[in-house]
Amino acid sequence: MAGKKTSFLYLSEQDMLKAGVLDGKQCVETIDDMFKVVGEGDYIMGGICENEHGQRIYFPEEKRFPNMPVAGPDRRFLSMITYLGGRFNLCACKWYGSNIENTKRGLPRSVLMVTLNNVETGEPFAHMSGNLLSAMRTGSVPAVGAKYLASKDAKVAAVIGAGVMGRATITCMKAALPQLTKAVVYDLVREKAEAFCAQMSSELGFRFEAVGSMEEAVRAADVITIATAGNAKPVIKTEWVKPNAVIATQGTADIPDELFTSSRVVFDEIKMHLAWKEEEEKISPAKRLGFPGASVFRLCEEGKINETDLVSLSQIACGKKLGRTSEEERFILIIGGMPVEDAAWGHTLYHNARKMGIGQELVLWDEPHWM
Amino acid sequence: MAGKKTSFLYLSEQDMLKAGVLDGKQCVETIDDMFKVVGEGDYIMGGICENEHGQRIYFPEEKRFPNMPVAGPDRRFLSMITYLGGRFNLCACKWYGSNIENTKRGLPRSVLMVTLNNVETGEPFAHMSGNLLSAMRTGSVPAVGAKYLASKDAKVAAVIGAGVMGRATITCMKAALPQLTKAVVYDLVREKAEAFCAQMSSELGFRFEAVGSMEEAVRAADVITIATAGNAKPVIKTEWVKPNAVIATQGTADIPDELFTSSRVVFDEIKMHLAWKEEEEKISPAKRLGFPGASVFRLCEEGKINETDLVSLSQIACGKKLGRTSEEERFILIIGGMPVEDAAWGHTLYHNARKMGIGQELVLWDEPHWM
Repeated sequence: MAGKKTSFLYLSEQDMLKAGVLDGKQCVETIDDMFKVVGEGDYIMGGICENEHGQRIYFPEEKRFPNMPVAGPDRRFLSMITYLGGRFNLCACKWYGSNIENTKRGLPRSVLMVTLNNVETGEPFAHMSGNLLSAMRTGSVPAVGAKYLASKDAKVAAVIGAGVMGRATITCMKAALPQLTKAVVYDLVREKAEAFCAQMSSELGFRFEAVGSMEEAVRAADVITIATAGNAKPVIKTEWVKPNAVIATQGTADIPDELFTSSRVVFDEIKMHLAWKEEEEKISPAKRLGFPGASVFRLCEEGKINETDLVSLSQIACGKKLGRTSEEERFILIIGGMPVEDAAWGHTLYHNARKMGIGQELVLWDEPHWM
Repeated sequence: MAGKKTSFLYLSEQDMLKAGVLDGKQCVETIDDMFKVVGEGDYIMGGICENEHGQRIYFPEEKRFPNMPVAGPDRRFLSMITYLGGRFNLCACKWYGSNIENTKRGLPRSVLMVTLNNVETGEPFAHMSGNLLSAMRTGSVPAVGAKYLASKDAKVAAVIGAGVMGRATITCMKAALPQLTKAVVYDLVREKAEAFCAQMSSELGFRFEAVGSMEEAVRAADVITIATAGNAKPVIKTEWVKPNAVIATQGTADIPDELFTSSRVVFDEIKMHLAWKEEEEKISPAKRLGFPGASVFRLCEEGKINETDLVSLSQIACGKKLGRTSEEERFILIIGGMPVEDAAWGHTLYHNARKMGIGQELVLWDEPHWM
């Protein structure tokens, strides 16, 4: 039989920008659709449990060989793989390396690539820069969360950490909650918060205000997103948080037990966090890296949170569980980040690029040399 | 600080051919070097155990959703990730989808891509077609094994299964054992074996003979390589096998217990097989896929093989363990396939391509949009 030609689309970061990677509205719509598909169960992430976050290369604590890296802040390589069904129907792999030292080299902390594959044949149909894709899909999750969980009167968003994730998150948040009138921004480095406000207010066309303390930011806010990196771990006090606020965290904040126990806890997808917990428990306590849901599962074990009260945003999005039921509820949304998000947003951007004629077609083979 | 430009080299299958992907001699040298590095411990594969074969998407036995695939022969997606040190010093990810139905579509059973990354920054420096790379690195392992384990008088190699893996293996085997005078080839489909012999004898310039039974092939051979795919599971009888032969298997053959217990068992890298065993034991017995070392570990549990007698080719290659010590020894080499092999052979081909000016330079960004 004649061999079949295979080619795929390469999209650089510039191509991704042209294809709309920073479009918060389309990103939120895509990830909202994705949560509905995930809530129905029409996905398979990695591993036997079908819910692995990814597979990681763990660098050792001590120097073993001249070139072998040692563990450090954000020092890892990670692959994240998935099948995603529904209207998406594709497989995807995100593969990246991270090193906080990159910022001294004029590079982002992580350099990410995403490959999209035909489910039936395994052929790649796209290979794309993953940095902005990944930032936006991450930023869209608090926004989708806010869509289902925020008070209808939510007017002020707080951004803790004026970095890439903060930018992506507020871009998506404004798309999800157009009624927002103000964003308050706090960063350890005041100048960074101010530059962030100047840039984002002109990009998004609403009011931004840099504030001098985390307390000030949190007290003002109806929706609070925490997106800090490295070793800084912001501490949030319960009394600062409005009783009907939504806090979205990727586990980098220090949230007191009483704030958890006086809020409803929602996970992006709890099945993945349970798989994460199981993985973490296999590591010796000294080497554990922590994971976003660690405090919540501890509180369950201590009997302070009822495990059956924990829900997934995916379940809320597809209507199987309730989101906000009254103006008296406070929510903490725990976000792990999932390969299904990369698959979904990558899928949309690939189709945008095809429609717009963006990107570079790469031939894998005219016909396979060996079959 | 000014942003740093990132670009990487794309190599299509044609580019890989020009860069020497089918060069058995260079492949065997590269993989032999790699085994020495792995034997020293200068590598980290995926997962906490640092020795995961890869992470897989497991499709379900039963139909769950209209588009979601169900399990079938060679139906999987898999990512394989690693750091490899020594003179290689890179990270790599191989990502592929497989479906035996592909052969009806003019495609190889698996479509594979390999990405190579800078260890310090995480930037990709190459993205390449992985099919021939993967076939050759797989074929090189029995050849490196034969280098250390075959009788010095080995003259005849048997190839069981006249497919892509058989081609790659005999190409590498002839490079590792130039003294071979003949290859005998057996396939369920006689015509396939004959076509294989015609092609490979002209490519490799020594004698090939298609034989009508597996027994005939095995009885004639000093080195036996089994590379069958799909559900066909060839049965080998102990009395067919020369007392000083080497059998290389990826676990697709049915090898009787007494053949194991009357041979020395060598793994490519036993640490990976132990990780595999642990993973497999977590799956319900009905859903287990099997893995190459399953029979050997069962024989250890039954007390018929002493676990301390099991060695790794990596340990032999770097001189920590003995290979063949007498003409009376028979060996079974159990091969799992490891991401370190993709990293090593990819590294060599990348440098070949750079020297020869092959491939397409792709800009990821002139400077990162967000840092």
